[in-house]
Amino acid sequence: VIVGGTVSQVVKSRNPAVKEGEYIADYAGWQSYSVGGGPGGGVFGVNKLDPNMAPISTALSVLGMPGMTAWHGLMNIGKPKPGETVAVSAASGAVGSMVGQLAKLKGCRAVGIAGGKDKCDYVVKELGFDACVDYKAEGANLHKALAAAAPKGIDIYFENVGGAVQQAVLPLLNDFARVPLCGMISQYNATEFTGGPNWAMLLIKRIMVQGFIVSDHADQTGKFFAEVAPLIKAGKIKYREDIVKGIDKAPAAFIGLLKGKNFGKLLVQVSDDPTRK
Amino acid sequence: VIVGGTVSQVVKSRNPAVKEGEYIADYAGWQSYSVGGGPGGGVFGVNKLDPNMAPISTALSVLGMPGMTAWHGLMNIGKPKPGETVAVSAASGAVGSMVGQLAKLKGCRAVGIAGGKDKCDYVVKELGFDACVDYKAEGANLHKALAAAAPKGIDIYFENVGGAVQQAVLPLLNDFARVPLCGMISQYNATEFTGGPNWAMLLIKRIMVQGFIVSDHADQTGKFFAEVAPLIKAGKIKYREDIVKGIDKAPAAFIGLLKGKNFGKLLVQVSDDPTRK
Repeated sequence: VIVGGTVSQVVKSRNPAVKEGEYIADYAGWQSYSVGGGPGGGVFGVNKLDPNMAPISTALSVLGMPGMTAWHGLMNIGKPKPGETVAVSAASGAVGSMVGQLAKLKGCRAVGIAGGKDKCDYVVKELGFDACVDYKAEGANLHKALAAAAPKGIDIYFENVGGAVQQAVLPLLNDFARVPLCGMISQYNATEFTGGPNWAMLLIKRIMVQGFIVSDHADQTGKFFAEVAPLIKAGKIKYREDIVKGIDKAPAAFIGLLKGKNFGKLLVQVSDDPTRK
Repeated sequence: VIVGGTVSQVVKSRNPAVKEGEYIADYAGWQSYSVGGGPGGGVFGVNKLDPNMAPISTALSVLGMPGMTAWHGLMNIGKPKPGETVAVSAASGAVGSMVGQLAKLKGCRAVGIAGGKDKCDYVVKELGFDACVDYKAEGANLHKALAAAAPKGIDIYFENVGGAVQQAVLPLLNDFARVPLCGMISQYNATEFTGGPNWAMLLIKRIMVQGFIVSDHADQTGKFFAEVAPLIKAGKIKYREDIVKGIDKAPAAFIGLLKGKNFGKLLVQVSDDPTRK
């Protein structure tokens, strides 16, 4: 079974702590039914879901792994200060959209980087980022377009993609910049790795780069929920889910993800959701 | 005047706070005499020296900028834990020798990298590192030799040099490794920068890289002195100074530094030191 986070309804239970009909977040992978807690038994150890608090799908998006990834990377690694400029790649995605909105709530300038006019419009008009640069449209002009969108330079670069976007962003980093290094999606299909930036730049500008994987930080889950769930409920943070129906669509959807075709957190719905009528 | 830290005796003073005959640490540059506080007026704002506490030259070595660089980078960025392995390049130098000795005092395995048998012998036999790898002798085998010297991998890499040494070290970094990025001496004469490592490695291993320059951290000076001066006085930290006599020797000495020819903190003595008889 291919691994992956899931939300499910309990069909049968011999465990008195989990009743039939209840909803759980789990890590059951790409399948229609799973047995037990599933491999890993839940990344965050918070399994039961209350469908009255938020749609159960959010346990896979804003209130799940992507949301906590954004929050942990920005808050605990990036440590934004009011007036700073935060840039984020894959800005319309589940992680990126949360990063920019949290940055705005912290009093920062939020600059997104995304592929295509629709995504950039969404990032600025719906999510409230100050600017969004379309890397597909800008091509070789990406660095210039970013410099215009971040006239005071970049203090935090939340890195999701690597590659050409990274090369355009790094020269804009200010002294003492922080780079929460969350993903390198442009590299995941690479057959050989190209070199990264020479570290002399990191030294001269006293830059900090921190690779992280959110599942290492399960101890932060309570703090994340306490801070972010009320913002979701109050409508202060918006989110978008790209729901593909049918497990047979999962492979094509996954390939599309690596090419940036999804718009919002990509979810595969394998059966009806009784909570969403 | 070429910039540089200095220790001097006051020849004339119209400032009642500084008396003729006293000793000061300053940033007066490459000259035999200077006027006033000198440009910058002292990197650490601690100017007067007590020759009875330690030789005045140590204000330029273990109790000055290099010592504090080692201490700040290792303690505040690297955050060593007992049982971890700390590797440091330019290990026989003023910074590197302090890094390894502090690591040992913290209960870590200290692995040095230095150029030549004399330097490596000094690092192990005099300074007490657990191992030292001679990058000049190992050549293309450097990575293998390092792997043998650090059988549990490397948790902290204190980076002074960049280049081929960096390339040999990085694959040995453990998950959650920290890299205080202090210098890139192999690059200082480069006419073009080669690429650094692809960041996918930093992400997968959740590595932190932090460029730093010690003069940004003058607020740590008091803590540094309080922790390190007693260790120097008690002989728990050894140091070596490579003193070249005559300001006319400074250019050749500086060029030699970039080639790794000095052994210990390179100082140029421009006049007699009355405290050292």
